[in-house]
Amino acid sequence: MRAITETAALDAETRALERPRDHTSELRLWLRMLACTNMIETEIRRRLRERFDVTLPRFDLMAQLDKAPEGLSLGEISRRMMVSNGNVTGLVERLTEDGLVERRASDTDRRSTFVRLTPDGRAAFRQMADEHADWIGELFGDLSADDIEVLLDQLGQAKASVLSHSKKGEGAR
Amino acid sequence: MRAITETAALDAETRALERPRDHTSELRLWLRMLACTNMIETEIRRRLRERFDVTLPRFDLMAQLDKAPEGLSLGEISRRMMVSNGNVTGLVERLTEDGLVERRASDTDRRSTFVRLTPDGRAAFRQMADEHADWIGELFGDLSADDIEVLLDQLGQAKASVLSHSKKGEGAR
Repeated sequence: MRAITETAALDAETRALERPRDHTSELRLWLRMLACTNMIETEIRRRLRERFDVTLPRFDLMAQLDKAPEGLSLGEISRRMMVSNGNVTGLVERLTEDGLVERRASDTDRRSTFVRLTPDGRAAFRQMADEHADWIGELFGDLSADDIEVLLDQLGQAKASVLSHSKKGEGAR
Repeated sequence: MRAITETAALDAETRALERPRDHTSELRLWLRMLACTNMIETEIRRRLRERFDVTLPRFDLMAQLDKAPEGLSLGEISRRMMVSNGNVTGLVERLTEDGLVERRASDTDRRSTFVRLTPDGRAAFRQMADEHADWIGELFGDLSADDIEVLLDQLGQAKASVLSHSKKGEGAR
């Protein structure tokens, strides 16, 4: 019993140090990156809700449509947002009811429905996107321009490493 | 019409450059951090499924319980994982059916149910956690020890900046 308690009391880092191949610093890096991302996402989610009464998935979907003025199929939106078709359909229905999104038939494939932002939807998104940019600027406000350049460069290297060791490395962007 | 198409063709970075207060580099940093995190999470999710037939939320829940040998209440698990109580209840039910988790009454509060890993659950988690650490080591494999230290330090600064500018700054960890 005592041995079990002692084992359990060792924290993850200590245990990792005792393993033959130790990945402590890589694990710390991953957990810190995840914590940083989650903190920003939580704050952005909260501000979108308080300021615009908008959910993050709704903002993300409008951002995808803003980048595709010709419109996107539901399947393509689902793929880009990495969420299910069902979720996308629900979001698109509510955006359509609010007059921010419209459906149009595809020029090349009559069976597919494309959706795009209406002029109102685009204006609403641009306002949110501008504030969103200000929020990100504020959240990273204590970093110098040099800090940001270093982080961009180092994260670029990290991304390249992850990509080259992912099993779908070639297929992913 | 032509003006609209031209406007739409400008990408987000170009537009950001035209704004009075420009947060282009902070936005690029945020998008790169998010892309990096999403790539790793997608790869880990895929490997957990292929290697152990386990979902990421199930792995995350077992990780929380592994850190708390005395057990956790459902509410506390939900708070730590930032997911709804309903989701946690479903995960705990399936883990209990599989003999990996057990319920126990709280010593201090008879109304609360605490859940903890069974010895089988702990052994199963440790095996997954060891492979998970190897995967993270592999994904960051192209980074030198120095690269990792720089990134840890820079992300620590970024995290501190985000925390100090979040409205719930004091309450968050």
